Amino acid sequence: MDIREALYTTRAMRRVKPDPVPMDIQERIMDAAVRAPSGGNTQNWRFMLVDDKEVIAEIGPIYRTAMGLLWQTLYAERVAAAADDPDAEESKAFTRVYNSAQWLADNFETVPLFLFGFTQNDTSGSSIYPALWSAQLAARAEGIGASLTQVLAFQHDDVLNILGIPTDQGWGMAGCVSLGYPTGKWGVAARQQAHEVSFRNQWGEPVGFETPEPLWP
Amino acid sequence: MDIREALYTTRAMRRVKPDPVPMDIQERIMDAAVRAPSGGNTQNWRFMLVDDKEVIAEIGPIYRTAMGLLWQTLYAERVAAAADDPDAEESKAFTRVYNSAQWLADNFETVPLFLFGFTQNDTSGSSIYPALWSAQLAARAEGIGASLTQVLAFQHDDVLNILGIPTDQGWGMAGCVSLGYPTGKWGVAARQQAHEVSFRNQWGEPVGFETPEPLWP
Repeated sequence: MDIREALYTTRAMRRVKPDPVPMDIQERIMDAAVRAPSGGNTQNWRFMLVDDKEVIAEIGPIYRTAMGLLWQTLYAERVAAAADDPDAEESKAFTRVYNSAQWLADNFETVPLFLFGFTQNDTSGSSIYPALWSAQLAARAEGIGASLTQVLAFQHDDVLNILGIPTDQGWGMAGCVSLGYPTGKWGVAARQQAHEVSFRNQWGEPVGFETPEPLWP
Repeated sequence: MDIREALYTTRAMRRVKPDPVPMDIQERIMDAAVRAPSGGNTQNWRFMLVDDKEVIAEIGPIYRTAMGLLWQTLYAERVAAAADDPDAEESKAFTRVYNSAQWLADNFETVPLFLFGFTQNDTSGSSIYPALWSAQLAARAEGIGASLTQVLAFQHDDVLNILGIPTDQGWGMAGCVSLGYPTGKWGVAARQQAHEVSFRNQWGEPVGFETPEPLWP
């Protein structure tokens, strides 16, 4: 697959089938992921693939609790706004995200594979998210849908206990990627165009190009 | 370019020529970058391309100060270890990173383009590093070398002043990517293999595959 197709069409694919992800595909995903850069090339990361149904069943209820907390806190305003004026464009966009995220919570136990990323004594995230994003792009090339979720951060300690993470050595969970064969179709996700969110040389100054539509396909 | 070639060969390319990066390439890089996912698809990000020599000249000395602080703090142990035993494999690996990073500091003013990423009231980094990594992958496909640096975080306020960032609205710098035509060659960077840093279902448990060499090319 062409790099541009991967970059444009690897959107959050939360709705996946329960079919397992073959081991050779998992291996290629991880082999690609660890090529990502990390600060000082320290590679101070660990990854965990979780496909044990018992482990997933332990995390599922925790995920749903965390998701509920997220809707009540960080996204409370958007939840309320979408309820107040469901036909507004912003409400519709948020409802799409809401439904997709809630699908993952409701169906957590049917997802065949999760990839957890861990860092040690790292707070910026700059040395783990490139690798997790590479994993998602590599998955896309294999026809596997993926979505990064930070929701479990709300119940960080519970998850770390289940997975046996040595927190006394400074290891912590940076994120969790759900993986599986998508039920929906690939496509370019709706985004603000680059010139709407980019400046040149000074905050607020035009970036110097303007493209009304995505440049791919 | 195939996605796998991009994922395997987009390593930190700090040594670049002073030749400018054409505007249409900058546009394609940014157009691809904004397709990356962000938490709740909020796209609560801003980007800034900096190619004004005067702005770059203002940041250069700050970057060198910050780099010096980094060697004296976070990397002090590795600097000392490399000096003590320069022929050890670890020392050689570190010295490569050191020389490359110091090259960027010493030659900051010759780099033709920098891409800054900003987030608002975000601490995890999960909603900006995928986009910055996408920018680097898109740059790779155009033959442009890139490297994410967090070094300026040491002098965060100075940089934000120069670039006019509205910190009173909660905006902060997440990272800076240097961009330019590389002086060196592309290649697969040395990394620990996936099975050495990956577990399955429980910390410390084998991931279930083992590959002595990168699976690409």
